[in-house]
Amino acid sequence: MLEVLEELSSYGANAEGGVTRLLYTDPWLQAQRAIISKMEQLGLEAGFDAVGNVFGKLPGSRQDEKPLLTGSHIDTVKTGGKYDGAYGVVASMMALGYLKAVYGAPKRTLEAVSFCEEEGSRFPLAYWGSGHVTGARPLWLATEIADSDGVTLLEAMREAGFDVTDATASGQQYPAKREFIGGYIEIHIEQGSILTYKKKQIGIVTAIVGQIRLTVQVTGSSNHAGTTPMKMRKDALAGAAEMVAITEQMALEAGEPLVATVGRLEVKRGTSNVVPGEVEFTLDIRHTDEPEMRTFCVRLLTRLEEIAMRRGLTIETVENLHAPPVAMQESMAKEIEAACEAGGFQHMRLPSGAGHDAQLFGPICPSAMIFVPSVGGISHSPEEFTEADDLIAGFHTLVHVLYQYGYGGKADEIL
Amino acid sequence: MLEVLEELSSYGANAEGGVTRLLYTDPWLQAQRAIISKMEQLGLEAGFDAVGNVFGKLPGSRQDEKPLLTGSHIDTVKTGGKYDGAYGVVASMMALGYLKAVYGAPKRTLEAVSFCEEEGSRFPLAYWGSGHVTGARPLWLATEIADSDGVTLLEAMREAGFDVTDATASGQQYPAKREFIGGYIEIHIEQGSILTYKKKQIGIVTAIVGQIRLTVQVTGSSNHAGTTPMKMRKDALAGAAEMVAITEQMALEAGEPLVATVGRLEVKRGTSNVVPGEVEFTLDIRHTDEPEMRTFCVRLLTRLEEIAMRRGLTIETVENLHAPPVAMQESMAKEIEAACEAGGFQHMRLPSGAGHDAQLFGPICPSAMIFVPSVGGISHSPEEFTEADDLIAGFHTLVHVLYQYGYGGKADEIL
Repeated sequence: MLEVLEELSSYGANAEGGVTRLLYTDPWLQAQRAIISKMEQLGLEAGFDAVGNVFGKLPGSRQDEKPLLTGSHIDTVKTGGKYDGAYGVVASMMALGYLKAVYGAPKRTLEAVSFCEEEGSRFPLAYWGSGHVTGARPLWLATEIADSDGVTLLEAMREAGFDVTDATASGQQYPAKREFIGGYIEIHIEQGSILTYKKKQIGIVTAIVGQIRLTVQVTGSSNHAGTTPMKMRKDALAGAAEMVAITEQMALEAGEPLVATVGRLEVKRGTSNVVPGEVEFTLDIRHTDEPEMRTFCVRLLTRLEEIAMRRGLTIETVENLHAPPVAMQESMAKEIEAACEAGGFQHMRLPSGAGHDAQLFGPICPSAMIFVPSVGGISHSPEEFTEADDLIAGFHTLVHVLYQYGYGGKADEIL
Repeated sequence: MLEVLEELSSYGANAEGGVTRLLYTDPWLQAQRAIISKMEQLGLEAGFDAVGNVFGKLPGSRQDEKPLLTGSHIDTVKTGGKYDGAYGVVASMMALGYLKAVYGAPKRTLEAVSFCEEEGSRFPLAYWGSGHVTGARPLWLATEIADSDGVTLLEAMREAGFDVTDATASGQQYPAKREFIGGYIEIHIEQGSILTYKKKQIGIVTAIVGQIRLTVQVTGSSNHAGTTPMKMRKDALAGAAEMVAITEQMALEAGEPLVATVGRLEVKRGTSNVVPGEVEFTLDIRHTDEPEMRTFCVRLLTRLEEIAMRRGLTIETVENLHAPPVAMQESMAKEIEAACEAGGFQHMRLPSGAGHDAQLFGPICPSAMIFVPSVGGISHSPEEFTEADDLIAGFHTLVHVLYQYGYGGKADEIL
C-alpha cells in the first residue's frame, strides 16, 4: 500500500517535493489510468465513469444489495502533498484487493472509487466527482464554469476524453449519476493537529462541519494621516481590526467545535500616510451544528454592525457559501471503533473541520470517515506528511470495517 | 492671482479634473517655464537653478541683508489637485509683483520660489527642491535613485535640461545650494479639516510635526481554517488586529497633536479558508514634540511586543523614517497674526500634520507657514478645493507679512 501511494505521487510530482494534479490535466489523467491499471491487477472491474471518476468493483454474491463505496479523490491543489485524497484512493483499492485475495468474493458488492475532483483548484467548483455520482452537481455546470485561462469545464473534459454533452451516449463503463448506493466510507489524513495533540492514531469523524463564508466590506473616509486628528477619523481599518478582534473573542467564547477565521483582509489603496477609507475581509465560520452556526453568525454580524455604527462606518456583508453540517452515521462509526479496538489503535471521535467527498454522501446514504494524523497539521503543501505506522493503522482499520460490511456481521444488513 | 492659479492648473490637467505634474516630465517643465514667464511680466528677475527650482527675485536696496524667500512647490502627486503647492507658488510671485508695482524696490531682497519637487511621487525621495537649496539633499542621490520605470533621477534631470553632474558648470542662473538665506515663508492649503471645523480662515503653523514611519511584520503559523481549533492557532492577523486596535486606543489617550495611523496592512498569501501566518503593516506616528513622539513610539512598540509574546507570535519592526518636528519661528508667527488682525481674518495657531518645504528651512533660518482651509480636508485628489474668499484672505495676509519684512517695520531687522 505504501509503495503504491509513493508510485502514485510521481504523477504530477514537482521539484519542491509536492504534487500538482489539477482536474483533466495530463498528470491527472495518467494518475487515473494508473489507478485503473492497478485495480485490474488486483482483480477489480475497473473503469471510468462519464466525468472521469474511476471505479474498481469487487462484485458481491447478493446483487439485490446496494454496494458499499469506499475511496477519496485523485486531484490535488497546486503544489499539494502526497496524501490528501491519494491515501484514501490507494488504501481503498488495496483493501479491496487484499480482501479479494484472502476471502474471495464478498456478499455485498464493494467498490473502490477515485473521484476526479474535490479540491476546486482548477475550476471554481468543488466536489465535481462525488457531486456527480450523488447528483449534487448537475452536468450543465460544465458549460458555465471556466478555469483562469478561460477554458470551460466542458472543454477541459472533452480534451481529457470525457464527452458528456449527451450523458446517455457517453459510452463510459460506469453510469453518470449512481442511483444504487448502499454506503460510503472514506479514509483521509486529518489535515489538523488534534490527533497528534491527543496522541491518537485513528480519528472517527462524527460530522463534517457546516460552513458559512462571508465577505465584509467596511467603508469609512480616506484622509491624510498627518492632518486628520484621531477624533475626526472614520478609519475603516481601525474598525475592521476591532471586528477581527471581536470575531476571535466570540469564537473563543463559543468554544469547540466552532471556528471563525478572517483569512483575507485587504486595505483598498492602502498607503502608510493615508487613513484607510475602505477595507474588505472574509469571514469563514464552521460548526457541526447548523442552528448553532447560524446563531453565532447572526450574533457576530450584529456586533459588527454595532462597531460600524459607533465608528460612523458602513458595512456590507455578502454570503458566498452556506453549506450545512453533515453528520456521519453512528453505527458505521461504532464499527470503526470496534476495528480500532481489534487492531489495538488509540482512537477518538472528532468532527472534520475540512470538507470531504463524504459530505456529499452523508445526506443520501450511511457514511463514515476515518482520519489518520497529519504531522504538524500541515496539508495542501509539499510538507504534508503522515507517519507510515499511522498510514498502516488506518489501512488495517479500513480493511477490518470493509470486511464487516462485505463479508462479516454487517454483510447481510440492508444499508 | 486666482486667474494665474487657474491657468497654472492647465499644465498636466487630466480628464478627472485633477493635475499630474511629476518631476522633470513635460507638464512639469511647461509649468515651470510659465512661472518664469509670469515672474518676468511681474518685473522679477526669474530663472532656474541647477536642479530646476525657479526663483523670481525682487532685489532690495540693502544687499548686505539676507533675502527672504517665499514660495512652495510646483510638482503634484498623480491625479492631484490644483492647490497643493501651486497656490503657494502663485500667491508668492503675485505678492511680490503687487508689492513691486505699489511700493517699488524693497529694502530687503524678496524672492519668490517654485520648488521643483516636494511630493516624492515620481522618485522615492521628497523635498528634492528645497532640500537642494538648503543642502539637506546631496546631489549624488541623483545617481542612486530611480523611478518605477528604472529612469534614474540624474537621467530624468538631464532629459529635462538640468545637467548637474558638475554642479559648478551647470550654467544656470541661480546657484545650486544657497548659503545666504534670511528667512522663509510658505502659504499652503491645510490638507486637513481643522480650520473648517474651527471656522477660521487663516491657520498660523506652530510647528511641522515630526514623523516616525515603521514597518511591522507579524509572524504566526499558517493553518487550515477548518481543522485548527481556536485555541491551537497562532493567527498573525488576529494579533495584528489587536495591535491596530491598541495603536488607535493609545493615540486617542495620548491626545492631540499626536496621531498614529496604520495605513497599509497586508495579509501574506491571504485566503478565506487559511489562518493567516504572516501580516505586514505600517505605522505612521506624528507629533510636534520630539521627546513625546519618541516616548509614545517606545511605549507602543512595547505593547506590540507584549501582544505578540502572549499570542506566541513574533514581530519584527523596521524604522523607515525618523524626521524630527520642526518649529516655526514665533516672531514670524506673530507678524502673521498681526496681518490677520489687520485684514479682519479669523485665525488660529495649529501644527502642520503634513510635511512641507518649510521644514527644510526651519533648522537653518526663521521660517513660517500660513494655512488656508481645505474643503472637507481633501487633498491629493481632483476634489481638492479651497474657497476663493479663503485663497484671497491668505494672499492678503502673505502680502501684509512680506511688506513688513521687505519694506515695513521688520525690513531693517537682521534675520
